[in-house]
Amino acid sequence: MAKKHYLFTPGPTPVPPEVSLAEAAPLIHHRTPEFSKILADVSEGLKHLFQTEEGEVLTLTSSGTGAMEACVVNLLSRKDTALVVRGGKFGERWAELCRAYGVKTTCIDVEYGCAVEPEAVETALKKDKRIKAVFITHCETSTGVQNDTETIANIVRGYPALLIVDAITAVGVSPFFMDKWQVDVAVTSSQKGLMMPPGLALAAVRPTAQDKIKKADLPRYYWDFRAMHDALKRGTTPFTPAISLIMALKAALEIIKEEGLEDIWQRHSRLAHATRESVKALGLELFARQPCDILTAVKVPDGIDGVAFTKNLRDKYGVSIAGGQAELKGKIFRVAHVGYMNDFDIITAVSAIEKGLHDGGYPVEAGKGVATAQRILMDDKK
Amino acid sequence: MAKKHYLFTPGPTPVPPEVSLAEAAPLIHHRTPEFSKILADVSEGLKHLFQTEEGEVLTLTSSGTGAMEACVVNLLSRKDTALVVRGGKFGERWAELCRAYGVKTTCIDVEYGCAVEPEAVETALKKDKRIKAVFITHCETSTGVQNDTETIANIVRGYPALLIVDAITAVGVSPFFMDKWQVDVAVTSSQKGLMMPPGLALAAVRPTAQDKIKKADLPRYYWDFRAMHDALKRGTTPFTPAISLIMALKAALEIIKEEGLEDIWQRHSRLAHATRESVKALGLELFARQPCDILTAVKVPDGIDGVAFTKNLRDKYGVSIAGGQAELKGKIFRVAHVGYMNDFDIITAVSAIEKGLHDGGYPVEAGKGVATAQRILMDDKK
Repeated sequence: MAKKHYLFTPGPTPVPPEVSLAEAAPLIHHRTPEFSKILADVSEGLKHLFQTEEGEVLTLTSSGTGAMEACVVNLLSRKDTALVVRGGKFGERWAELCRAYGVKTTCIDVEYGCAVEPEAVETALKKDKRIKAVFITHCETSTGVQNDTETIANIVRGYPALLIVDAITAVGVSPFFMDKWQVDVAVTSSQKGLMMPPGLALAAVRPTAQDKIKKADLPRYYWDFRAMHDALKRGTTPFTPAISLIMALKAALEIIKEEGLEDIWQRHSRLAHATRESVKALGLELFARQPCDILTAVKVPDGIDGVAFTKNLRDKYGVSIAGGQAELKGKIFRVAHVGYMNDFDIITAVSAIEKGLHDGGYPVEAGKGVATAQRILMDDKK
Repeated sequence: MAKKHYLFTPGPTPVPPEVSLAEAAPLIHHRTPEFSKILADVSEGLKHLFQTEEGEVLTLTSSGTGAMEACVVNLLSRKDTALVVRGGKFGERWAELCRAYGVKTTCIDVEYGCAVEPEAVETALKKDKRIKAVFITHCETSTGVQNDTETIANIVRGYPALLIVDAITAVGVSPFFMDKWQVDVAVTSSQKGLMMPPGLALAAVRPTAQDKIKKADLPRYYWDFRAMHDALKRGTTPFTPAISLIMALKAALEIIKEEGLEDIWQRHSRLAHATRESVKALGLELFARQPCDILTAVKVPDGIDGVAFTKNLRDKYGVSIAGGQAELKGKIFRVAHVGYMNDFDIITAVSAIEKGLHDGGYPVEAGKGVATAQRILMDDKK
């Protein structure tokens, strides 16, 4: 029998067939009233997703990193100082981006697997009054950690600095309240909670960031928020957009609307809970001390080759999970439960993990993890 | 009856169903041997398309403008001087990009509708020895003009400057010989000759540019050719690529391979010839003095409202052509014959133009344009 394939990676994630079909539909031209209507609808749907009424959401043809670079070039000037919380690969990316543009960058280094202490942000802001922007990662996908963005936002509000949040694996997955928390700019990309293929990035910008966007002096062209804002007012984009992906986005937002954002958050929370308890039932240890609901990072147990484990799952069972990145390579594995996922997907993922551990020589009581997941998913309401 | 839609715009262009289906296929993960194999195949196919064996082709998730920006930041340093040939919107974009990064930029301004005199490039290079890079547009889509890239390349070769070519509407459409002409860097995007939806850009880089890429000091991160090159060697991309578009690219390159590049150039040449003669038979005048084979730019005849003309074609007949941009708005219309197009498409386009002219009050002998196209397409071999 041909192998069936399963994606439990934190991007790409499974795409609903309705979204794939929308992507494959005949193209319409992007300088037409028809496209403008779609872009307007999509922008409204995205505002809901970011939980912002005050802000606007700009659509970029790029990966999520493009939207991160756009934040740096639109919100900083050459002589500014940036503060970056760095507790994994994506926090590091903020620092790399700021430094690529020659911006003075102070980092709060957080132990991998831990969330940042919000007080550390306060201390840094107190110490250096020149800090103009604070860059954080809501869910650090490389470690599976969730940071306390709400508390950090509360702190940053007391200082003359903008708060920019990498919410790439958070938006459309777990509670994120841009207006209520007073986040100035947040970004996400298409291949996570939006259940789409990669290729689009979204930047939500609140009016509080506009003054800085106007005055920032780093070089920008493709990433220029001003041009995107002006184009959006005219119902279009500054450059030819990824039209087929915008059609897919429209379909994805319709699916999201039908389920409802709170139910989506609740679903991810249930699936994450079941996954965590299952791997713990197998005697494994979680890597993240403050785990997010997007993926579960698990320490590879002694005696198991972490790289061979993920490779075996993929090659033998058609099940893709993620390994650890950089210094975490071989030390953790990461099982995503984000986007187009339901209870049966979790049962499948846990079943595959049991098989893979067994193949690697780790003692597994067959069904212990699966039964744990099943029990939790049947107990939890919904 | 539901309206049928026809795209005769220079991007987006019609997408073959095989390409749409490939785009809609289930996603594979981009950090797998399976994806590496696809990326390697695609890169080889693209090298053929650019007619380079020495160079390598980098795949960017962005519109074509992103690849243009990538050229600027990878090939220039702060104190460099750039020379830009500016004969339309896309030539202007090179200049805007260089200036956005603070690079001293000299422009050769060319009358809209005309190709640049290659000698003007020589004069400029002679006059200012500091010029480090020459930016030109092979086909200026905004005016329908084809520049003589081969002759310009011959000239630039005598000076210590790189030649960077916007070949966005040329690659996979009309003869373009990167190695033979000794073009250093050329870019294209997915929604033209590649017959794909927009969202990917391609940058072909010959070894002659590598030294400058290493030494250039403009800020770069997402656009960094060095990171793309290193990742490509490892069979991947620096950031999550637009996986579904890369699948579409693979399918498109297979179609291109089957037809053969020379036959593709020949087909575009025939279709362009038939279109030009048809509009001339209707008494209209071409706008471009050195017309390219990608699209035909036509002067809107006296008494016809150019903006209303294109709008009427779209709204009444479902036929999308492009109007003029910026100062050419209302003064020209542009009919693209690029990519997934055959003889019958040209007959359809000319038929629509006849109808639209008639609707606008322009005296048309019904069938005169169509018959002209038909005659040429039946006469020309193939």
